[in-house]
Amino acid sequence: MGSNGGQDLQVLIERFEQGHATAAARLITILENGGEPAESVMDRIFPKARGAYRIGFTGPPGAGKSSLVLHISQLLRRRDVQIGVIAVDPTSPFSGGALLGDRIRMQRLTGDPGVFVRSLASRGSLGGISNCTDEVADLLDAFGKEMILIETVGVGQSELEIAETTHTVVVILVPESGDGIQAMKAGLMEIGDVFVMNKADHPDSELAAKEIEDTLRLKNVPDGAWIPPVVLTSALEGRGIKELAESIEKHHRYLEEEDRLVEKRRRILRSRVRSAFMDRMERKIWDDPSVREILSERIGDVYEGRLSPYRLVQELEKRVKIE
Amino acid sequence: MGSNGGQDLQVLIERFEQGHATAAARLITILENGGEPAESVMDRIFPKARGAYRIGFTGPPGAGKSSLVLHISQLLRRRDVQIGVIAVDPTSPFSGGALLGDRIRMQRLTGDPGVFVRSLASRGSLGGISNCTDEVADLLDAFGKEMILIETVGVGQSELEIAETTHTVVVILVPESGDGIQAMKAGLMEIGDVFVMNKADHPDSELAAKEIEDTLRLKNVPDGAWIPPVVLTSALEGRGIKELAESIEKHHRYLEEEDRLVEKRRRILRSRVRSAFMDRMERKIWDDPSVREILSERIGDVYEGRLSPYRLVQELEKRVKIE
Repeated sequence: MGSNGGQDLQVLIERFEQGHATAAARLITILENGGEPAESVMDRIFPKARGAYRIGFTGPPGAGKSSLVLHISQLLRRRDVQIGVIAVDPTSPFSGGALLGDRIRMQRLTGDPGVFVRSLASRGSLGGISNCTDEVADLLDAFGKEMILIETVGVGQSELEIAETTHTVVVILVPESGDGIQAMKAGLMEIGDVFVMNKADHPDSELAAKEIEDTLRLKNVPDGAWIPPVVLTSALEGRGIKELAESIEKHHRYLEEEDRLVEKRRRILRSRVRSAFMDRMERKIWDDPSVREILSERIGDVYEGRLSPYRLVQELEKRVKIE
Repeated sequence: MGSNGGQDLQVLIERFEQGHATAAARLITILENGGEPAESVMDRIFPKARGAYRIGFTGPPGAGKSSLVLHISQLLRRRDVQIGVIAVDPTSPFSGGALLGDRIRMQRLTGDPGVFVRSLASRGSLGGISNCTDEVADLLDAFGKEMILIETVGVGQSELEIAETTHTVVVILVPESGDGIQAMKAGLMEIGDVFVMNKADHPDSELAAKEIEDTLRLKNVPDGAWIPPVVLTSALEGRGIKELAESIEKHHRYLEEEDRLVEKRRRILRSRVRSAFMDRMERKIWDDPSVREILSERIGDVYEGRLSPYRLVQELEKRVKIE
């Protein structure tokens, strides 16, 4: 950012505060790049966040997540809700190719100043939501967006991460069989607040929706707990969108009762502090000259089988003190 | 383990050294449970590992990984190679149901004292190889197994983990289209040393194999670098198994040239030390009373938006000293 980086940042933040989308886009790039500049941006942005509601959309690739996000976005815009869309999905049309219908919907959406769309690189080639998803959501929140829609592909560990980032998790499934889909479903069952059986025109969709309902009912839930509804949709034909929006709102209202949303927001912040702290510790410890010295002296013993990796770890651990 | 845990462990290790599979199985359970007993086992086991060759088998669920592992195991046994099989795949027949042919192969295999088969719980519902895969592989190595075959489902971040655990990574794909498979393939392309296009009886299998070859050829590889072969197999009919085994051996020989295998083994050990150290640090730091006190005092400011999560992290960081 050069020697007058602080000044540049100041100008950028001012333009952001005046509502310029280009400034928001540039700030997001700074957040993506991380480091001290990203932390300075966060210092300025974080207090301005007003508590936008965050909705995660996840499911196997090809289940129609992006199409549904587009439909829900259009619906929210018709109600004049300011929205932000974050796509952390390499297979998403937000990040690349799209069906023709989606592409037209995308164009309408991106031409609307009430919507801010951003796709972020995912951490892995496929799994894992971006490291800065939370921060970008904060920024869109501070930019005045009232609802943040986050699309992420639901495979592996990312499914847990989206539940730690958003307030309502929408799990989108299709009536497909196959071991792959079955295994993914198993993980996704744990995190959904609302389930969608997309491709309602498929002959097996009602049966598949029923199966999910049955699985959910088998779980032992305490009295008054949220029971996730299963909504049948057809993203292609735009059917079931209103019902999906209603289910999301219903979950939102549920969370607002008995301070559940406050508790959830706090839990999310605590887990953010924890993971940011551990990321920093990893760098700090691993770059430390004393740690590096022990490591270079003793790793040979591990290579030769004279020392188990755990004993070396214990030696390293002795160098770290907490006051 | 009771008050004479150390003595029990001693007996168990002795029986393990005498070659009793039941003792090996019990020690694996101790490794799975983790903590101090696991570390004691590792202290005893680790120096006895002789450097077994580790082969990872990964790919989308339903691609036929387990069937191929069974076929390769049978082939290795006919050559009198002592083998260990670790399945970290919730969809694997090693862990549950199987095709009839596989079940028969499994029975033959498990009746053979030259084979030790163990399935491990995966960390996530689907993604992630087990935390103790490396340790179990060490144990099987110390038990006299010459080749360790590790089967893991290739989704999300686990694909990277298997590459950090094994010497040769075999990526198994099927000639299936669909966004899901495409996205998985994208991540798997990065880590394969040998590619398998299974279900060679499928009409599109040759075309699909050709596509993978083309993708691999597009990569800019330095002179003398390994170019992953693509092998057509039919796990169902047992075709292409010999060719697959030859490709794996060829990669093994390639690694043995110019100290590549030594380097790879070291890299794997370094990354094990690093991740074990960070796991330990996370517990140590997070359980520390001083850290907990700052956290409970200041987290409220984060909740109220007065303090960004990063500034709190910086405050926490000041308490950690490295000498």
